[in-house]
Amino acid sequence: MISSTILKIDTKGNGQILDLTPQVSQVIAQKKSDEATVFLSVIGSTAGLTTIEYEPGLVNHDMKAAFEKIAPEHDRYVHEETWHDDNGHSHVRASLLGPSLHVPVMDGRLVLGTWQQIILIDFDTRPRSREIVCQILS
Amino acid sequence: MISSTILKIDTKGNGQILDLTPQVSQVIAQKKSDEATVFLSVIGSTAGLTTIEYEPGLVNHDMKAAFEKIAPEHDRYVHEETWHDDNGHSHVRASLLGPSLHVPVMDGRLVLGTWQQIILIDFDTRPRSREIVCQILS
Amino acid sequence: MISSTILKIDTKGNGQILDLTPQVSQVIAQKKSDEATVFLSVIGSTAGLTTIEYEPGLVNHDMKAAFEKIAPEHDRYVHEETWHDDNGHSHVRASLLGPSLHVPVMDGRLVLGTWQQIILIDFDTRPRSREIVCQILS
Repeated sequence: MISSTILKIDTKGNGQILDLTPQVSQVIAQKKSDEATVFLSVIGSTAGLTTIEYEPGLVNHDMKAAFEKIAPEHDRYVHEETWHDDNGHSHVRASLLGPSLHVPVMDGRLVLGTWQQIILIDFDTRPRSREIVCQILS
Repeated sequence: MISSTILKIDTKGNGQILDLTPQVSQVIAQKKSDEATVFLSVIGSTAGLTTIEYEPGLVNHDMKAAFEKIAPEHDRYVHEETWHDDNGHSHVRASLLGPSLHVPVMDGRLVLGTWQQIILIDFDTRPRSREIVCQILS
Repeated sequence: MISSTILKIDTKGNGQILDLTPQVSQVIAQKKSDEATVFLSVIGSTAGLTTIEYEPGLVNHDMKAAFEKIAPEHDRYVHEETWHDDNGHSHVRASLLGPSLHVPVMDGRLVLGTWQQIILIDFDTRPRSREIVCQILS
């Protein structure tokens, strides 16, 4: 009833937003599940999952601007003072967005809006190799 | 084990917050599931799901004020420059809130706090007919 | 296939962040599920769930600073004017963070990053006895 797959994605970090819809759709197609729910979880504390209209304006500018308001890159973070690193804002942004997302499957396909894609946002300050657990319950 | 229902809700957009608890409770009652989990997903990239104490102060003022801080309605959005529309803030707010939510069912009823209701927030700038996929795993 | 457990946690409120990973791991260990998904939901409208690197800098300072930007404690909340209380910011923060989180289980263990813990944030302005529903689907 549960089938788990680990998706591996290389990112550039620094708030890069990646469209995971093709990879998740491929997993669904392989499982031939007609009616199911897909549960996605990103491993790690500096990345998060959500959906967005995957177009350059939102992906490269508008989302970054919102996160810069909530947790500015160059602000005071006790995390950075303690660990002598530079990714305090990455942790805060990731915790706010959250690491988990679910998407329904009906008639064998992901149920998303026409302009709605599944995304990973990697908030870390360096390139990362990410793992996203994709579990299908059917 | 999975039962999917699509809830259809007409909204006014513009950040309107709608209480979905009665509709979701009705689906649960019909399924007669004693122990289950309900998975909700809103289709589209300008609306989101969460829970709130559904009272006028929070619903009509306080939540809007917070979203206005994070993604002001009248700010610069490259999304709007590209597509010549006015809902850049709607997309950003929806992605931050997220499109998915789950709620437990025990003894045949939704497990929520006394002052905790399931809500849809429609951030788009015009009235919309929304579809929320409600999947019960039992 | 579904097994529900209620975790009871006493908090200090006021944005206290508590690490739930040990309690959730214990539930997993008791169920002896090899492959599963854990669904967590906090009951109530002034607390939320997410993951974080559970270290003092983020937990005691950096996360609070971000929430203070989004929904300042001493701001105008119509909720407070209506109900003559002081926790308008608690409600707004909780709704933004969200009450639900899922975490995968593989080989009988929670799949989390090395520096990624499951947390409850209690935004209320007083100590609370919280209940978190922990459902394992396997």
